[in-house]
Amino acid sequence: MPSEFDIIARFFTRPTPTATLGIGDDCALLLSRPDMLTAISCDMLVSGIHFFADTDPRQLGHKSLAVNLSDLAAMGARPVAFTMALALPAPDEAWLKPFSEGLFAVAEQYRCELIGGDTTRGPLNICVTIFGETPVNEVLRRDQAQPGDDIWVSGVLGEARVALEFLKGSISLEPALREAALTRLQMPTPRVALGMAIRQRAHAAIDLSDGLIGDLSHILSRSKVGATLNIDALPAGPALAGQAQDFRLRCLLAGGDDYELCFTAPPDSRNAILEAAHKTDTPVTRVGVIEPTSGLRLLNAKGEAQTFRHTSFDHFLNS
Amino acid sequence: MPSEFDIIARFFTRPTPTATLGIGDDCALLLSRPDMLTAISCDMLVSGIHFFADTDPRQLGHKSLAVNLSDLAAMGARPVAFTMALALPAPDEAWLKPFSEGLFAVAEQYRCELIGGDTTRGPLNICVTIFGETPVNEVLRRDQAQPGDDIWVSGVLGEARVALEFLKGSISLEPALREAALTRLQMPTPRVALGMAIRQRAHAAIDLSDGLIGDLSHILSRSKVGATLNIDALPAGPALAGQAQDFRLRCLLAGGDDYELCFTAPPDSRNAILEAAHKTDTPVTRVGVIEPTSGLRLLNAKGEAQTFRHTSFDHFLNS
Repeated sequence: MPSEFDIIARFFTRPTPTATLGIGDDCALLLSRPDMLTAISCDMLVSGIHFFADTDPRQLGHKSLAVNLSDLAAMGARPVAFTMALALPAPDEAWLKPFSEGLFAVAEQYRCELIGGDTTRGPLNICVTIFGETPVNEVLRRDQAQPGDDIWVSGVLGEARVALEFLKGSISLEPALREAALTRLQMPTPRVALGMAIRQRAHAAIDLSDGLIGDLSHILSRSKVGATLNIDALPAGPALAGQAQDFRLRCLLAGGDDYELCFTAPPDSRNAILEAAHKTDTPVTRVGVIEPTSGLRLLNAKGEAQTFRHTSFDHFLNS
Repeated sequence: MPSEFDIIARFFTRPTPTATLGIGDDCALLLSRPDMLTAISCDMLVSGIHFFADTDPRQLGHKSLAVNLSDLAAMGARPVAFTMALALPAPDEAWLKPFSEGLFAVAEQYRCELIGGDTTRGPLNICVTIFGETPVNEVLRRDQAQPGDDIWVSGVLGEARVALEFLKGSISLEPALREAALTRLQMPTPRVALGMAIRQRAHAAIDLSDGLIGDLSHILSRSKVGATLNIDALPAGPALAGQAQDFRLRCLLAGGDDYELCFTAPPDSRNAILEAAHKTDTPVTRVGVIEPTSGLRLLNAKGEAQTFRHTSFDHFLNS
């Protein structure tokens, strides 16, 4: 049976050309570039809460890092490095190998080095803390939205929730649509390039992990503004097409696990935003406008007010 | 019942005068000082593995941060900030209040700000990632021990293990000795001031979390050297006095959870080390010497070779 040190050496040690010191000491060491802020985020994924216990370990390795990369994207930060703490019921090599391969595939794609962590026995739990960098004056925060700003979202929404409900057996999903939707749930694409490309133009940004309404509400409350969304403008993933209208709207507005960016930018930056989207090969859609009056209003394409029970994913309120 | 956001707002949000941005955005933001390295460490504490499920939450809050501060101490780094991810079976306010108070008592003592994290449902699991700073040329690593160096340890060894065995019912412990030993186990004192005070003189350092033999062996293997320890010189905690000789030696050499520093320094720095210890009010003891020949040799005060089954705490090998 491999020891804790064997596991780290065999599955989690790769070259770290950027870090001054990587795995193997009491601390890792990073040297920041002058005038760069270090952006730091931390996500904990728990078996049975954030993923099913039988989730493909390769996909889980991907997702563990991707959700943190998405937080960097929402600040406009370039990925640099990460630490990972891992609690495992047993040192199962048949699980560790694909898990670490999925993890490092994403790490290499985004040039984000594993520089440290911890490995222990315990109920399966994955905690990644990620480090990125962004110029001091070009960071995207939640509290900088301005009245008059356009509200944009990247990609399409709702597919991860469709996939989750399909896995739970609560809806049916055509075979042709399944794979793409499941990939959206299990192997999300963090919008890192887009975040970096818009950081000089956008005022505020957040990544969509709990659903558009809940996450946009964080921008609104921290920026002390309100907004109107055009629900007919929301970019729906193909898997939503055949679903009931109520369920579609729930997926779009409160689906969770989208890992798209929601950001605000002044109308005179529309062309620049579209150009950034084109350059980074990331679709973006204008879905609403920031207003001085607090609260979030929903309209349809005809301008008629729509109601929706405001909600988002909360790990204690939603079981 | 409080939500995830209520819990963060009520129990885990304090001022962050150093960070550019603390809790409440996708990432926290830190600006490094020029020519300073950021030291980063990560520890995961799991209920039933690292602590008993009924551990006093205030002490657990203390220990969760203290074990990470100890890693900074071993690099000679000054604490700056930390993130904490917390999985909880339920949002129990009677647990969260003392836990957060214990955590922030240590955080304030060492001026280490909580700048971000994650809160979720799940089996109790606490993952702290800590950030410190140290000048580029004054960092203590494991791989810099030199033949001829003295080997030093701070404080006293073995008491945490005595306390653990007492709690497990495997030994008896005089009431007069209990409290101090239990405090060593549950509320360790990270040797941050000592680490910073010796970083210009010491060659290599590690913090003692798994036991002296196991942890010193990391210095030896990474520095490609060997060592001889004088086991009669090891500073034993008072709780070891009445225990059997075999058990005493196990506690001293492989006890675990000591959170003292083990470091090496050239003999011409002895006075400087003693002065640093005096200034930081931290006892230090010379316990051996680094040698060019690999391996770890144990002698008693008479110079006679001693045998000991080399071991240290491993989360997968020791159940």
